[in-house]
Amino acid sequence: MPSANEPRNTQKPGGWGTIASSDVSRRTFNPIRDVLSRPVQPLATPKSTKDPISDPTVFGNFKTHPVVVEAVEEAVRSFSFNGYPPSVGVPQAREAVANKYTHPLAPLTANDVVMASGCSGAVEMAISVLCNEGQNILLPRPGFCLYNTVAGSRNVEARLYNLLAEKNWEVDIEHMESLIDENTAAILINNPSNPCGSNFTKAHLKAILSVCERRRIPLISDEIYADMVFSGQVFTPTATLTSTVPVLTLGGLAKQWLVPGWRIGWILINDRNNAFAQVRQGLFALSTLINGPCAPIQAAIPKIFAEIPDSYLPALNMQLESHARILENELGKAWGLDVITPQGAMYVMVKLNLNMFADISDDADFCHKLKWEENVEILPGECFAYPGTVRLVITPPQDKLRIAASRIAAFCERHRK
Amino acid sequence: MPSANEPRNTQKPGGWGTIASSDVSRRTFNPIRDVLSRPVQPLATPKSTKDPISDPTVFGNFKTHPVVVEAVEEAVRSFSFNGYPPSVGVPQAREAVANKYTHPLAPLTANDVVMASGCSGAVEMAISVLCNEGQNILLPRPGFCLYNTVAGSRNVEARLYNLLAEKNWEVDIEHMESLIDENTAAILINNPSNPCGSNFTKAHLKAILSVCERRRIPLISDEIYADMVFSGQVFTPTATLTSTVPVLTLGGLAKQWLVPGWRIGWILINDRNNAFAQVRQGLFALSTLINGPCAPIQAAIPKIFAEIPDSYLPALNMQLESHARILENELGKAWGLDVITPQGAMYVMVKLNLNMFADISDDADFCHKLKWEENVEILPGECFAYPGTVRLVITPPQDKLRIAASRIAAFCERHRK
Repeated sequence: MPSANEPRNTQKPGGWGTIASSDVSRRTFNPIRDVLSRPVQPLATPKSTKDPISDPTVFGNFKTHPVVVEAVEEAVRSFSFNGYPPSVGVPQAREAVANKYTHPLAPLTANDVVMASGCSGAVEMAISVLCNEGQNILLPRPGFCLYNTVAGSRNVEARLYNLLAEKNWEVDIEHMESLIDENTAAILINNPSNPCGSNFTKAHLKAILSVCERRRIPLISDEIYADMVFSGQVFTPTATLTSTVPVLTLGGLAKQWLVPGWRIGWILINDRNNAFAQVRQGLFALSTLINGPCAPIQAAIPKIFAEIPDSYLPALNMQLESHARILENELGKAWGLDVITPQGAMYVMVKLNLNMFADISDDADFCHKLKWEENVEILPGECFAYPGTVRLVITPPQDKLRIAASRIAAFCERHRK
Repeated sequence: MPSANEPRNTQKPGGWGTIASSDVSRRTFNPIRDVLSRPVQPLATPKSTKDPISDPTVFGNFKTHPVVVEAVEEAVRSFSFNGYPPSVGVPQAREAVANKYTHPLAPLTANDVVMASGCSGAVEMAISVLCNEGQNILLPRPGFCLYNTVAGSRNVEARLYNLLAEKNWEVDIEHMESLIDENTAAILINNPSNPCGSNFTKAHLKAILSVCERRRIPLISDEIYADMVFSGQVFTPTATLTSTVPVLTLGGLAKQWLVPGWRIGWILINDRNNAFAQVRQGLFALSTLINGPCAPIQAAIPKIFAEIPDSYLPALNMQLESHARILENELGKAWGLDVITPQGAMYVMVKLNLNMFADISDDADFCHKLKWEENVEILPGECFAYPGTVRLVITPPQDKLRIAASRIAAFCERHRK
């Protein structure tokens, strides 16, 4: 039959050859997952077989609250949440999320909440509903790589605005605004930030919102680390600072409740003056593709929010801060490293002074050799579109953090110029 | 700035107007979700306020096995599955799924399993990895509407091949083959079938596979109702009948284990002669977008598969069959209906002889009036691209099924010509 396109499969006569994978799947590239799964080249016998130090929950020192587990057990034992949930979410969960995050200046009802398969699912839906193929979205640099992965997968151009390390990772507003054109479908910010560990002031958030207002660009505010800030810091939900800019706020159970593997996220539709009427319908439509996240865990949310004691979050933040300070202090003494003081979240960014090392070519080389020689696993800045840095997770137990820091210091010393 | 495209947002001077939703979200349309959420027009006072009879798990008569609940409780209480799972799935879950479904003629290892967010997620990934925008995929008519929803969302043309009601819903092979051209990226079958309740013979599956073989088209075999067949029927996994055709087999916990709300599905990569090397990589890449389904529920799978007694499935099938026979017998006596005997799954399809009714215009009208007058909720064939029929779910308790059938019979009698 006649056809405009060539068949994509490479067929051998009499055989199947290789079935081509789709363009979408080829465009879908997640650098963190790639780095984590990249094998260490067996160039030599490893010097160390010490445990890698990487995952936030793997050591068991940061455990979710027992109420969280009880809430899920109750939901599962009730046999009441085994059926299909509404694709936008279990009503009790939407209601509980709305009640928790509603604010006099940014009121929310259950109908403004769309449950998603993790905050990753929320990112995927938010970008997919706002951006057409061929349009562009403004993303932070350094920034969580999933934004780029999703944009690339959907053929949406990622334009990276600079965050300024010397200004506690505030947005270079002028640079951000210079990237906007008629095809800019959305601006995405992440506050508090992965990988930066930063927390924006109200004044800075207002400056970002005024760009949106001036250029009529809707905002995606990824607040998966909402309320997770260190002493002296105040977290402000972006949507509470504007009465005009339409904002999709992203969140989930992963970080504050320490259960990233449960894959429960949400989108809060902060709809200014009904600007998101179509977008709301679009989110509802997209939710029908996979029918939302695990229903019994959604059903546990009201109890989780109601019964965890008020002391839980301040204690968690204090513990996280003490971990951050250990890394900051220990790595501050190491050769060739500049630690940037974090203000929240679960990460410390470290600048590598590559000219001070004898045989480290770049951040990926630093991480690769560090893993090989010291069995300490950290992520290179390349995963966040910000070469010349490395990101450390602060959640391992304090003794392990000290060991990791001392191994990194020894590594730096050994490779100094 | 100059640009090839027009800005999409309708901006009022000084205001935000309406932010346009993306083309993808506008193309994403799920007719079942639409029908379920469509309000009943208040044309008159409703004649009935009886409970609607629709959802498979809502009545509590089909409960999952206690081992399933215990397995999840153990996983959650262990605090060992709160962290991010590998995006392709928790290793123990992939291993358990591979061990359960491996077959001497279609061997599987853990590396051939990709965990997904429900079988819906598996459908979404399978279509997304095989089909490019502008290509086409062959789908069954009548068929589960999500296939069309996903294809439409991805701008993949859905070409519907006919199933033959008079031949127990076998594929019209000649019609199927006539739809294939150079842009046909995949054929999808669903066996046992939703909505047909059919189960293909080995001979018929081989006939379908020979089309794939002849035309070099990979097969997606949605087997979410695997092993759920009635007396006298044998279920055959499609992939075990070929040594050449590459097959993505889709499955999940939803149906056999009666937990559709848990959103646990999987893809089995039956890779003939390494034809799926790229597709496998593509599935791994796509899995990084949302990082797989809920980790503790994945972790429960080995116990679920190992400890549920062998008697569970035959008892479930026998119960389902008795329900199907009740509907078949009761509706067989009703005016204007032809019931097509189901062979498995959870559904009965009924043909409407519309010329025998005085004031029923089509299947949607039948369902709408039935809901209004008798408060019995069934789905019109339009949801499955097969007008002139209705689909009944067989899972409500037997007394409710008898009540529903008698209400439907009364409705048909009242509307007879």
